[in-house]
Amino acid sequence: MAGADVPEGTIDVLDHGFVRLDDAMASDLSVVNAARVSFARNKQELEAEDEGLIGFLLRNRHGTPFEHNAFRFHVRCPIFVMREWIRHRWSSFNEFSMRYSRASDEFYLPAAEDVRQQVGKPGAYSFEPVEPGLAESARMEIETVCENAYAAYHRLVEAGVARELARTVLPVAAYTEFFWTVNARSLMNFLSLRNAETAQREIRRYAEAVESLFAERMPITHAAFVAAGRTPP
Amino acid sequence: MAGADVPEGTIDVLDHGFVRLDDAMASDLSVVNAARVSFARNKQELEAEDEGLIGFLLRNRHGTPFEHNAFRFHVRCPIFVMREWIRHRWSSFNEFSMRYSRASDEFYLPAAEDVRQQVGKPGAYSFEPVEPGLAESARMEIETVCENAYAAYHRLVEAGVARELARTVLPVAAYTEFFWTVNARSLMNFLSLRNAETAQREIRRYAEAVESLFAERMPITHAAFVAAGRTPP
Amino acid sequence: MAGADVPEGTIDVLDHGFVRLDDAMASDLSVVNAARVSFARNKQELEAEDEGLIGFLLRNRHGTPFEHNAFRFHVRCPIFVMREWIRHRWSSFNEFSMRYSRASDEFYLPAAEDVRQQVGKPGAYSFEPVEPGLAESARMEIETVCENAYAAYHRLVEAGVARELARTVLPVAAYTEFFWTVNARSLMNFLSLRNAETAQREIRRYAEAVESLFAERMPITHAAFVAAGRTPP
Amino acid sequence: MAGADVPEGTIDVLDHGFVRLDDAMASDLSVVNAARVSFARNKQELEAEDEGLIGFLLRNRHGTPFEHNAFRFHVRCPIFVMREWIRHRWSSFNEFSMRYSRASDEFYLPAAEDVRQQVGKPGAYSFEPVEPGLAESARMEIETVCENAYAAYHRLVEAGVARELARTVLPVAAYTEFFWTVNARSLMNFLSLRNAETAQREIRRYAEAVESLFAERMPITHAAFVAAGRTPP
Repeated sequence: MAGADVPEGTIDVLDHGFVRLDDAMASDLSVVNAARVSFARNKQELEAEDEGLIGFLLRNRHGTPFEHNAFRFHVRCPIFVMREWIRHRWSSFNEFSMRYSRASDEFYLPAAEDVRQQVGKPGAYSFEPVEPGLAESARMEIETVCENAYAAYHRLVEAGVARELARTVLPVAAYTEFFWTVNARSLMNFLSLRNAETAQREIRRYAEAVESLFAERMPITHAAFVAAGRTPP
Repeated sequence: MAGADVPEGTIDVLDHGFVRLDDAMASDLSVVNAARVSFARNKQELEAEDEGLIGFLLRNRHGTPFEHNAFRFHVRCPIFVMREWIRHRWSSFNEFSMRYSRASDEFYLPAAEDVRQQVGKPGAYSFEPVEPGLAESARMEIETVCENAYAAYHRLVEAGVARELARTVLPVAAYTEFFWTVNARSLMNFLSLRNAETAQREIRRYAEAVESLFAERMPITHAAFVAAGRTPP
Repeated sequence: MAGADVPEGTIDVLDHGFVRLDDAMASDLSVVNAARVSFARNKQELEAEDEGLIGFLLRNRHGTPFEHNAFRFHVRCPIFVMREWIRHRWSSFNEFSMRYSRASDEFYLPAAEDVRQQVGKPGAYSFEPVEPGLAESARMEIETVCENAYAAYHRLVEAGVARELARTVLPVAAYTEFFWTVNARSLMNFLSLRNAETAQREIRRYAEAVESLFAERMPITHAAFVAAGRTPP
Repeated sequence: MAGADVPEGTIDVLDHGFVRLDDAMASDLSVVNAARVSFARNKQELEAEDEGLIGFLLRNRHGTPFEHNAFRFHVRCPIFVMREWIRHRWSSFNEFSMRYSRASDEFYLPAAEDVRQQVGKPGAYSFEPVEPGLAESARMEIETVCENAYAAYHRLVEAGVARELARTVLPVAAYTEFFWTVNARSLMNFLSLRNAETAQREIRRYAEAVESLFAERMPITHAAFVAAGRTPP
């Protein structure tokens, strides 16, 4: 995602991906006004006492005041990352369709330090780098499969096979794009599960980017979320 | 809702109610960008061809592109209206709580021309005004019940009974307030059911106000919704 | 709800209410099979090791395996209780409509020991019984309001006013009925909030009844929920 | 899915997939009782007049009475099919995880008559078989990519690379398994979109199997759905 025409606020993730905040209707103030919901007391600006209220709501699982906002993200990520992302049902997705449009020829190739082995026991796995030789051969193996798959895809499409069928050979390392719109409550749930030790490293990098964009727009809510041990309300 | 401190954009509804658009992240452009979801083709401005796309999406039940926006409304309405409103689950509500705060002393008293009788057969009811004498006596009856109920509420609270218990005597004509955040897809579903012949007159007046605020922000989507016979995507 | 024709499994709640489990598709086994989701390992009976898995899933917020079941309840409760219940959006409701049908003439009148005062400070209220004289006079006050409201409702309907309008005088103490269908994950969220110290006493009684019916059908899941400090997954 | 140990009620779909109804709480009667929701009128058996009510509810978009039931399906399908399926958010999914478990070595290879070309214009595509020679070479191409990808996956895992990373080379033709629990309203929405001309052929075959299992359990509702032009309520 290099280049002069990348919009401001675009965060590069992995080798060919990004997270971009397309638009937002979000402020800490909206949490406070929704929690009090009173015409007489509707505020235009946050006051000192309101910080405590936001923390109280978060700790006591009063989740609905955190729903009166919206973040619209534009994301580019590998299919296997998107497959985890879309489990988050309380939000909205529109994905680039490969039924009729030509698939991307970009695939996720892990950096050498991200080629890892799984250690430990079921329920408590952790990951450690493999030795450099294996990292390199694994990267070549992955690259070869992806290149061959895309070449086959290309030949099938050129020969006249429908794109919706030709795409079936593409690996889940292939990049896809989607719009994702979500409110702060559902977003904190996402962050608690995906920017976490137990999440797969690749989606975690995206969740870190999402979190930084969230923290910019709702700093007090984000600080309260962190202070509450990253448990969503 | 008269008075100098009423924010712009507040629409009076019924005798003591209102609908106010607190904030929105909404444009027809977002529908188009979400439908195409392509970094290469992400637009900053709507073009002529896009109008047709919005109509196509609506008519063919491609609903998700209409979800990437948000409207935050502040509403004041009778409890019996709110009870119908809250059935719309794909949206977010925060209501003024009468467990700990003092209840409003305002109640819905229908205008004389809104005192109506039900005519017709089950499944096909319609409503007609009652004759003026009955309209007046009905209004007095309703007013008396509400005043007596509020007086009892007041006495119970003054005597020390918990507000959460005292409120049980309040009629569903009592006004309540809430914040409601909803996306355009869920909003069109609301409008199709509540700004409709079959809806109860009182919630319909609110739905009309909501619809006018929606139409201002997403005029092309609204026009396509009307052209599609008010069927939500 | 006394009488010979009350179906088995109906639990009386408050003075005129009940909770009845109409049907269920629910077992602890379904949690285990959904968590493992493997044709090769699909089980017909729960085994000893599975109890540990259920506890692990609950403690680690793996919520989806608890969604593959359903409980259909039939509930009769006061409107003010139903208004709290319906906030639980991840479930399905059908309520008796008073737009066209005649409203019930039954209202919630608290037992003397349930007439209470609120003590303590905001954010940390508790409730204590009022002294017997006040309890009795409060009960009479409440009863009078409800009787007068129903008499007015009756007169309005008899005079020809539409039921949907006449009902506006009814207090939120009036009983209503609904069907509620919910899965175990959403149900545990309901229980964690409504069968809790901070819940209003009246809905808590309903939540206790719901919990006992849940515990009968999914005893291991229920025990794990209790062991996890009643935090939903 | 041949073999003696396949449970009754399993419907084979595509070359290695199936749909199996694991359990259901579903009857036409539940629709009627939920629509009327009245203790006095709760029925044990469907009566003649009820058929008309179900049709009326469906045609008039009274959707909630169709939510008080549940179908739990066990499905085996290619990843690209599952990616369309999971868009249906008002339902519950648990998928076999390839993060820690070994991936399946089965892939979707279209039958010769399913190798197709796309004809027509954007917005109105249709599909026709390709000529036999191309069908055969396309099948070989697809098979080769899948076999090579699985071989690479196998080598990576054997060499010690974490499964969650090795799986990234697998094509979306790879089979996966999941449990899906859904109510009749959401199910009819799924059928209206996926058992339709505009759906991709492969998911349509699954939707046909799902529809036959639905029709067996709720025949009157299904007939009303068909009579209403397959528009969901």
